[in-house]
Amino acid sequence: MDQTSTMDKLISLCKRRGFIFPSAEKYGGLQGFWDFGPLGVELKNNIKKAWWKRFVQQRDDVVGLDSAIITNSAVWQKSGHIEGFSDKLIECKNCNRRFKESDFAAADGAATLACPYCNSKNFSPARDFNTMLRTYIGPVEESSAVAYLRPETAQNIFVDFDTVRQALRLKLPFGIAQIGKAFRNEITPGNFIFRSREFEMMELEYFIHPKDDGTWFKKWVEESYQWFLDLGLKKENLRKYEQKEEELAHYAKETIDIEYKFGFEKGWAELMGIANRTDFDLKAHGFMYKDDVAKSEFVPFVIEPSAGVDRAALAFLLDAYDEVKGGRTTTTESNKEVETVLRLHKDLAPYKAAVLPLSKKEQLSGPAKELYHELKKHFMVDYDDVASIGRRYRRQDEIGTPYCITVDFDSLEDKKVTVRDRDTMKQERVAIAEITAYLGERFR
Amino acid sequence: MDQTSTMDKLISLCKRRGFIFPSAEKYGGLQGFWDFGPLGVELKNNIKKAWWKRFVQQRDDVVGLDSAIITNSAVWQKSGHIEGFSDKLIECKNCNRRFKESDFAAADGAATLACPYCNSKNFSPARDFNTMLRTYIGPVEESSAVAYLRPETAQNIFVDFDTVRQALRLKLPFGIAQIGKAFRNEITPGNFIFRSREFEMMELEYFIHPKDDGTWFKKWVEESYQWFLDLGLKKENLRKYEQKEEELAHYAKETIDIEYKFGFEKGWAELMGIANRTDFDLKAHGFMYKDDVAKSEFVPFVIEPSAGVDRAALAFLLDAYDEVKGGRTTTTESNKEVETVLRLHKDLAPYKAAVLPLSKKEQLSGPAKELYHELKKHFMVDYDDVASIGRRYRRQDEIGTPYCITVDFDSLEDKKVTVRDRDTMKQERVAIAEITAYLGERFR
Repeated sequence: MDQTSTMDKLISLCKRRGFIFPSAEKYGGLQGFWDFGPLGVELKNNIKKAWWKRFVQQRDDVVGLDSAIITNSAVWQKSGHIEGFSDKLIECKNCNRRFKESDFAAADGAATLACPYCNSKNFSPARDFNTMLRTYIGPVEESSAVAYLRPETAQNIFVDFDTVRQALRLKLPFGIAQIGKAFRNEITPGNFIFRSREFEMMELEYFIHPKDDGTWFKKWVEESYQWFLDLGLKKENLRKYEQKEEELAHYAKETIDIEYKFGFEKGWAELMGIANRTDFDLKAHGFMYKDDVAKSEFVPFVIEPSAGVDRAALAFLLDAYDEVKGGRTTTTESNKEVETVLRLHKDLAPYKAAVLPLSKKEQLSGPAKELYHELKKHFMVDYDDVASIGRRYRRQDEIGTPYCITVDFDSLEDKKVTVRDRDTMKQERVAIAEITAYLGERFR
Repeated sequence: MDQTSTMDKLISLCKRRGFIFPSAEKYGGLQGFWDFGPLGVELKNNIKKAWWKRFVQQRDDVVGLDSAIITNSAVWQKSGHIEGFSDKLIECKNCNRRFKESDFAAADGAATLACPYCNSKNFSPARDFNTMLRTYIGPVEESSAVAYLRPETAQNIFVDFDTVRQALRLKLPFGIAQIGKAFRNEITPGNFIFRSREFEMMELEYFIHPKDDGTWFKKWVEESYQWFLDLGLKKENLRKYEQKEEELAHYAKETIDIEYKFGFEKGWAELMGIANRTDFDLKAHGFMYKDDVAKSEFVPFVIEPSAGVDRAALAFLLDAYDEVKGGRTTTTESNKEVETVLRLHKDLAPYKAAVLPLSKKEQLSGPAKELYHELKKHFMVDYDDVASIGRRYRRQDEIGTPYCITVDFDSLEDKKVTVRDRDTMKQERVAIAEITAYLGERFR
């Protein structure tokens, strides 16, 4: 399917079904800021949970951290962000609007391009514009009280290196992982939640002996790539892109981006990056590591797998979006219509199951509600008794619910319900008493 | 135990064991900002998970939301925050430092009090100081680009009222819940994480027909109170305080605070509040609700149970903190020492279990590591083979690990391990093959 038109349909679906919509839309929104609705928050939480489980809980060499968003400006002074975390901006000398130079440079013949607002061709030379968001702490707005909203979670990990290492008695190699919000005053946010000004990151800083950097870099590229595959992204939509020398950040010796075929820009765009940051950061903050066994002291290297939660969510949604021409549901009315199926990995699906009584009659709604409440003790489960069963299947397909559980009149006799699989569309009769265990096996 | 000295010991424990420590401490910290270390992030996540499970997943009338932190200033204009979300500040006319008037007023004879910095008694009259944090969005710092870091998550819920209601086809009564960061430029942050400038909230806005407000208000007070009890807070440390007419916020018809005996200030301090906000907020944002059955249109009332994650974490930690004089561990060295036990509810404990091989010998570490890796697939589990078994028990007690699993030489023969319960100190032999199920029954 064409990714660009998929994107348009997805944006519409996300708003209509309560996944994602512009923040404060009632007041015209705020460019680059998004709210995650009831289904979006579950999707996002499931992504974060899957990442944390894989990279913190299940490993014996990684611990977690949750540091403050607003950070002492000394951190960003030392890290080089205050000096260097900037975009080149040009200003239209006629209307004084500012633009990102690279947006113009991307097109042919920047010099011939006019201001999109006033059509003037008179631009100032490019100037650095720091993209960190600033605020003031304390009762007086003075420069000493300036603090920054972190543009990444990584620096907070570096600054806490010694405290965490000592508290947990960690020895190299070890990692510190963090999931949290970060902010960048992007000049041109866009492509739905791909480039926003407020976003969430999943970052892991893996500290190693400098001699091991090649091995660990490769390992983390593979681990990261595999994580996306395991959560269902199609292999053909995923690729590794090795940054060229001139593309590398100043602190990086080597960087591989895992790109997803989002469809916009050049088709492929960065989903996450794995960087060998060398000893740049720990050195900047003045940390050393003492190896008691080898009796040596040195500054560890850092391998950083860094992913965006929002970008991951967008990739999972785009990848899962599927359209099927009719016939999925049993009602005749829908046979000719295009049906949307969100084939999300079942661990990521907002609802794990939906309980659908065949009719609204008390006879069925009684046991259906009972089953629903039993299942809700353990899983996110939906309940729907409005409109035909075919229409209800479609509503669940559209939001990616893996299992639809139908309570029908036979259920009253045989104490069984029909479980329909979203993808295979196979239906099987399962004893009501077994349903919790049935789902339990499928959602560990 | 005396809560004040408990607090001092707890703060030290939190730093030493990696629960909580000042943000960017390496650079002198930033007053009112805290980082949650490896154990702290697990504790906090467990609190949030327990709240979300109880109040979103397990209910059929509440859905979730995760909205942006930085919010269009129109939202705060309409809500009244730009005008009224302020503290009264007085300024020392000699050294120009500013103070919260209420901090002075709290003591006797404010007028006689001197500036704590320069000792001058010459103060300006009190002026309003808005405690919302401000930032600028977009490439130019001008007033039109001002945006605010939300001081609460509630307004974002109100603003999304229609979008969420329509997407999920919700009918009254229903609630929208949100967990997320909020920021307040507190003049006097303090008491560890009790009053900080960056904090996390768990808020639920429950929309009802105005005639039902009394019933629902009472229900939410009880539900909220019960949640803390169910997670192990001692009844004698918890109380309900009904705000007097003159204490109520301008939007509230009735508010009950659930207070915890933190020990500081007047002994009791607010852990969470349940407010009847009437139709103030939905009216301010211009929302109506149409009841299709009753054919009526009106502005719903809102009952708001609002809790702080950090305050909850502090209450759980303080409440769980216990000291026992010797004898808990089997080694003689520790018999006379005071031993710390963190009696956290097992659902909140950072680690659910710790695997402790009796010796570091390969013979034991092999099967111990194997068990550890098996358990880590499902639970947060620690592994410790450093120092005597008595010392290791104490290390786990101090961080609240409910179960210590010891692998000894008998284990090689009988394929069983010793499971020690943190609170009862009972030890039982459990087959290695059964341990996952054993913990599974205890952590659903």
